[in-house]
Amino acid sequence: MLSLGFMNTEIQTLIFILDLFGTSVFAVTGSLAAGRKHMDLFGVVVLATVTALGGGTLRDLILGAYPVFWVSSPVYLLMAVTTAITTFLLVRFFKLPNKLLSVFDAFGLAVFTVIGTKKALDLGAPASIAVVMGVMTGVVGGMIRDVLSGEIPLILRREIYATASLCGAVTFSVVLMIVQNQNIAVITSVAVTLALRLSAIRWMISLPIFIAHKD
Amino acid sequence: MLSLGFMNTEIQTLIFILDLFGTSVFAVTGSLAAGRKHMDLFGVVVLATVTALGGGTLRDLILGAYPVFWVSSPVYLLMAVTTAITTFLLVRFFKLPNKLLSVFDAFGLAVFTVIGTKKALDLGAPASIAVVMGVMTGVVGGMIRDVLSGEIPLILRREIYATASLCGAVTFSVVLMIVQNQNIAVITSVAVTLALRLSAIRWMISLPIFIAHKD
Amino acid sequence: MLSLGFMNTEIQTLIFILDLFGTSVFAVTGSLAAGRKHMDLFGVVVLATVTALGGGTLRDLILGAYPVFWVSSPVYLLMAVTTAITTFLLVRFFKLPNKLLSVFDAFGLAVFTVIGTKKALDLGAPASIAVVMGVMTGVVGGMIRDVLSGEIPLILRREIYATASLCGAVTFSVVLMIVQNQNIAVITSVAVTLALRLSAIRWMISLPIFIAHKD
Repeated sequence: MLSLGFMNTEIQTLIFILDLFGTSVFAVTGSLAAGRKHMDLFGVVVLATVTALGGGTLRDLILGAYPVFWVSSPVYLLMAVTTAITTFLLVRFFKLPNKLLSVFDAFGLAVFTVIGTKKALDLGAPASIAVVMGVMTGVVGGMIRDVLSGEIPLILRREIYATASLCGAVTFSVVLMIVQNQNIAVITSVAVTLALRLSAIRWMISLPIFIAHKD
Repeated sequence: MLSLGFMNTEIQTLIFILDLFGTSVFAVTGSLAAGRKHMDLFGVVVLATVTALGGGTLRDLILGAYPVFWVSSPVYLLMAVTTAITTFLLVRFFKLPNKLLSVFDAFGLAVFTVIGTKKALDLGAPASIAVVMGVMTGVVGGMIRDVLSGEIPLILRREIYATASLCGAVTFSVVLMIVQNQNIAVITSVAVTLALRLSAIRWMISLPIFIAHKD
Repeated sequence: MLSLGFMNTEIQTLIFILDLFGTSVFAVTGSLAAGRKHMDLFGVVVLATVTALGGGTLRDLILGAYPVFWVSSPVYLLMAVTTAITTFLLVRFFKLPNKLLSVFDAFGLAVFTVIGTKKALDLGAPASIAVVMGVMTGVVGGMIRDVLSGEIPLILRREIYATASLCGAVTFSVVLMIVQNQNIAVITSVAVTLALRLSAIRWMISLPIFIAHKD
């Protein structure tokens, strides 16, 4: 019991750190998208913040989990804004390797997915809904980012992205049901999402594409 | 009293069946939109689900009706996902006639409108708000679908679409106020929306267009 | 005490009038955007309403402030719809000078910002969150308007727009903390937003733009 409590604190801390890391990474992708559209400093901050906080916000609204996470813990907002300003300044001097960014982004996706799924289950949602909430937490921020910068959301296209998130969310729910241990479920889920997403990047794997008769 | 109770159960069952039918039809339109943009299987599922559940979700969020309908009854989610996958598979072999799809879609619009209006009135909203909620339930899913696939929402353009929904919602509120009978109100409202929408399709009727001085 | 109560009633009335004015002005900008895309009457009404009510709706959803403001006071909805129809009719005969419209719009931005910030503080949110809510109330309606009419949101681009809103929201929070008088805080905040926004229009001032290495 004591050791489990100890483990729980450890995993809580780990999740919190990963969560902030995910927030920061998604804020970077939002900043870079804003940059490609030649937005000004404020546009960069807005797009970075929406990308970083959008998924979790929609999740909390739909679950009725008030107050929304970044209202109760302003650290997320601070993290997103700080990251955006830093990116805005640094990008004039350095170039972020796309490969590195994709790997970071995969970490963010994996963590946000497991956090979303866990929060929904903690609030008593059935597993099917919790999985949707996990995927929503992972991908909605990026969807809003793409819509606001005038692009068709990337996740709706070729690469395995949301699919990796879906598998991670399902893994968390199933492993938790079987072993009844959140630590193991969190770690397995993150590993599954990461493995799928990184494989997709490495070998450019895609799901089958929709082929319709011509209208 | 007894017979009214009996009628109520009947109308409840009818509404539930029509609701599932509307969910399925809107999921088909989302899948086809995803297909036109060559999205992969997951993109198709996401776009179909958002189209089918988007309007009702926004309605429930604004009314504060927790939990959101598809969180409390996962059957809607299941219906949307199953329809999307089926459409994804079938469309390789069959071609859906556009006419048929438009007629189905008109049914979905009519049912979603009346369900949205009814839910808002049941929760104690004034009639003006209930009408807005009815239209929102009917049209928002399609608007999100169009935005995500990079189009200007069709309903904001020429054909009578949202206008049919508006008339259906007003009809429900007014008839209910006069005859105090939900069954009659539901049936009249669905008939009005359907008649208007199908006439618009048949004879290509439009509302007047905005004509402005050139800037 | 009495005189303060008197002042409070006065400022409440002033805020209410300005709020309706802001609603109306934003509805005009929504109508004109719809007109540029040749939408029909209903499209105009929808786009005008979403522009006028969108920011406050998202604010209330995130703060969990139920019922959403236009559900509890339908006058806002009525104002937006009436303005849209009036604009639709008048624009055939008159041309609105863009300069005048920009000035009106700046008033709307200033008022919505202070109202959003005030509401969040009244509900007990910390200052950092209240500032975000103020900016959100001021700018989100216009963002949705631009996305729905197929444009990249203007506020994410060059001119000082959201930045003026940000400064107004910060001013309200800081002045209120120092002088503990809502009247003074409201007036100072509106003045700051207006001064910044009108200066930006007059002298075309911009924030620095994002300059990135080419990919």
